[in-house]
Amino acid sequence: MKFIHTSDWHIGRQLHHQSLLDDQAFVLEQIVFLAKAHKVDAVVIAGDIYDRSVPPANAVALLNDVVTQLIQDAKVQVLMIAGNHDSHERLGFAASQMSSSGLHIIGPLTSTVSRVQLTGKNGDAIFYSIPYAEPSRVRSLLDVEVSTHEDAMQVLLKQTTQDDSKGLPKVVVSHCFLDGGSESESERPLSIGGADRINPDLFKPFDYVALGHLHGPQYKGAEYIRYSGSPLKYSFSEINQNKSVTLVELNQQNKPPSIELLPLSALRDVRVISGFLNDVLEEGKADQNKDDYLMVRLQDKHAILDAMGKLRNVYPNVLHLERSGLMSESSNIEIKKDHIKQNEMDMFSSFFSQTTGDELSDSQQTFMKQLLNGLHGAEE
Amino acid sequence: MKFIHTSDWHIGRQLHHQSLLDDQAFVLEQIVFLAKAHKVDAVVIAGDIYDRSVPPANAVALLNDVVTQLIQDAKVQVLMIAGNHDSHERLGFAASQMSSSGLHIIGPLTSTVSRVQLTGKNGDAIFYSIPYAEPSRVRSLLDVEVSTHEDAMQVLLKQTTQDDSKGLPKVVVSHCFLDGGSESESERPLSIGGADRINPDLFKPFDYVALGHLHGPQYKGAEYIRYSGSPLKYSFSEINQNKSVTLVELNQQNKPPSIELLPLSALRDVRVISGFLNDVLEEGKADQNKDDYLMVRLQDKHAILDAMGKLRNVYPNVLHLERSGLMSESSNIEIKKDHIKQNEMDMFSSFFSQTTGDELSDSQQTFMKQLLNGLHGAEE
Repeated sequence: MKFIHTSDWHIGRQLHHQSLLDDQAFVLEQIVFLAKAHKVDAVVIAGDIYDRSVPPANAVALLNDVVTQLIQDAKVQVLMIAGNHDSHERLGFAASQMSSSGLHIIGPLTSTVSRVQLTGKNGDAIFYSIPYAEPSRVRSLLDVEVSTHEDAMQVLLKQTTQDDSKGLPKVVVSHCFLDGGSESESERPLSIGGADRINPDLFKPFDYVALGHLHGPQYKGAEYIRYSGSPLKYSFSEINQNKSVTLVELNQQNKPPSIELLPLSALRDVRVISGFLNDVLEEGKADQNKDDYLMVRLQDKHAILDAMGKLRNVYPNVLHLERSGLMSESSNIEIKKDHIKQNEMDMFSSFFSQTTGDELSDSQQTFMKQLLNGLHGAEE
Repeated sequence: MKFIHTSDWHIGRQLHHQSLLDDQAFVLEQIVFLAKAHKVDAVVIAGDIYDRSVPPANAVALLNDVVTQLIQDAKVQVLMIAGNHDSHERLGFAASQMSSSGLHIIGPLTSTVSRVQLTGKNGDAIFYSIPYAEPSRVRSLLDVEVSTHEDAMQVLLKQTTQDDSKGLPKVVVSHCFLDGGSESESERPLSIGGADRINPDLFKPFDYVALGHLHGPQYKGAEYIRYSGSPLKYSFSEINQNKSVTLVELNQQNKPPSIELLPLSALRDVRVISGFLNDVLEEGKADQNKDDYLMVRLQDKHAILDAMGKLRNVYPNVLHLERSGLMSESSNIEIKKDHIKQNEMDMFSSFFSQTTGDELSDSQQTFMKQLLNGLHGAEE
């Protein structure tokens, strides 16, 4: 059984109000290509298929297109679960009418954990799917006393560990937050205060654990307990992540699987550029990837008229501009209460050094004194 | 080939802000029952499956439930098309992955009209499905010059008339407005000014035409060119309609099918009650169907404190209250410009007769004169 593990497609997502649908179509096309090239038996998507519970119609059309290519053209089985961004009922509509075609959508959590035997050219495997669920949902569904995500997961996993897979490898697909996992800025917290963290050891009894939620590829507890990460960078905090899908080949039960990361390339990368405006503009002329999604940090210390407009003449997809040159190097600027007791000259010196990082020069001090004296003279 | 033709389920619809989901579940359950009882081969739903392009999650869950019962339990094929209320992309998601299970959803119109051969115990039939489409959509999709719904339908039907059904009966499923059809208040107009009307004769070359859009059951042009109507009364304008589904048994090609209307009963009927408040309340005590959805027309001519509250003590689902007693019998009240020239006594008499339907009595006239004189006295 050979499959691609991916997650967090977030189809329909925007980056700083910029639609990413073209970028998503481009990267999902690669996943279809990789599925064919590696002759996988299945593609498993571990939740957050869409970005919103009500995805826009063109996002639905894109997923429809990708699924049809995988199932009909590539003859690859597809298994997907609902994440915390998805509407479980909407995603799960008519799921049982699709399964005979090889499309397995697990929308709302049910009291018996979904168990699907996927067919592999070199042996089948059992996939247990646990879509994202609040502890309260597990509590009412199974009539058990659970208050944390970990408690809830423990109860659900108990069903799957007890299940007899007849010697076939066991895979768990879930959308949750493993304790110690590295977050990015583009994930929506599952709960406040850490009650969403789950001990990775809970997943040790399985042959592979295909997780979704965290957007950086990583594993916790064991190499086979993994997040594939999202296929695209969904925030500027992810600029150094290498996005990929995970190619998994299961061996016999209780033997570690082969795992390989297959890199994905983006239609437009997400990058941060720092420098002085003129340098940035100059370098931009020769930049091969002018249409990347950019955050630009300008080091210039003086006011610039329409910096965004000038940058977009060269880089059309500058999405965010930071004037780091106008801030002191210390990012924590505290305005102390004492300041209101300072005289105007002291206050201005202090403001100047905080915002520029430099002290006032002698000539600047003289100029300011003259200016302040002039103002006070005018008042009297 | 024996099938049930129904349409305009509008799952998720409200009636005067009252959710109808329980009522819809109740009546759809009957359709499942009738499908089993009459051993039909298929259930055909001619559009407006949901009431809104983004149906609430519990509406999706209800449709999922009904479809699963029909396909899995009753082994009945289901064919549904998108109407003008549905989101074609959302409804049509993964449609090709469902068709092998016997669930045929035709979401967005495609350049080749959908052609599905449904299996019948006594012979198959070909179903051509034309989901609701604006003429502009047909224009861009097929690159033809059409401006009206009729032009567009003519182009689409041309494909189906030319198609060789190999002697099998031909059924068209569509969501449109036939010229001369009777409207209810609960349909959303397809366009303004009559450009949505289609000549029923266009549909004559087929063996049965299963239409949706109009909420009252009716046929136009020929008995086999039919609207099944909605399964529930979705406005007070439908109180006298008998809601039903249409049972169709096709014979050989070009022979008229057998058609029978199977009545549906509602969990709560939609009714109008007229009378004086005390009579209405008195009769309500013995009313077996107190929880029907009611519009109450009160004939009382005097002000009543909290009439709605009093009525709802007896009839909990009074949704609308009309004080017909406070209006003259002529519903067209015209305030003529001449009125501003009348003196106060004439104006009041005229107002009194318009709103009550009665003339001022002698004693009322005397009282008003005294009142007006008193007011003028106070002014001077």
